[in-house]
Amino acid sequence: MPNKKYTIRVRIWIDEEQGPFLGIGRVILLERIKETGSITNAAKSIKMSYRQAWQLVEDMNKRAVMPLVEKIHGGKNGSGAVLTKAGEKAIKEFYKLEEKINRVISRSSYRISI
Amino acid sequence: MPNKKYTIRVRIWIDEEQGPFLGIGRVILLERIKETGSITNAAKSIKMSYRQAWQLVEDMNKRAVMPLVEKIHGGKNGSGAVLTKAGEKAIKEFYKLEEKINRVISRSSYRISI
Repeated sequence: MPNKKYTIRVRIWIDEEQGPFLGIGRVILLERIKETGSITNAAKSIKMSYRQAWQLVEDMNKRAVMPLVEKIHGGKNGSGAVLTKAGEKAIKEFYKLEEKINRVISRSSYRISI
Repeated sequence: MPNKKYTIRVRIWIDEEQGPFLGIGRVILLERIKETGSITNAAKSIKMSYRQAWQLVEDMNKRAVMPLVEKIHGGKNGSGAVLTKAGEKAIKEFYKLEEKINRVISRSSYRISI
């Protein structure tokens, strides 16, 4: 029987009691806030409207045990935003989980024969 | 710090070289073909058009190493369809994989703290 290469794909997200809380889209938004120091620039970098990015941040902040993003008002560059410790942790936890699952997947991929 | 219950969610599918090949939707279609003995009845049971179900079956049959569904023409009840051994195997492989990943997830779920 000829061989065929199958690849296992997976999409992961974390639900909080009220539904979807953190997936790769939100994780990337958090990373960009960390890199750019503002929600406006983070949103621009992923071609998202400021309004939508702001709503996602509000939603995460409200539903996490501790806020993930802290808004900073005033200062030389106008208003900005930084990740809290909880925000940094959320990114790490997400990738740790993704890595764990990818390890299982890479062990399984070569065993699939359909 | 208050406790919060997070749940890890995951969606799995299998890519073949030309892209998505088998996900939960197609697996359910295969199961229903097995149960009902026809593509028409399988499609009805999941509120899918016959045309779409037929196209999914054609696509799977063309892209798997061996066809997953065999169409039977004639007979008392008109034309029907049955799963081949490869079709049975595809269902099993998919659920085996899902179970493996769910084991990792259930070990991880209670450890998430964000």
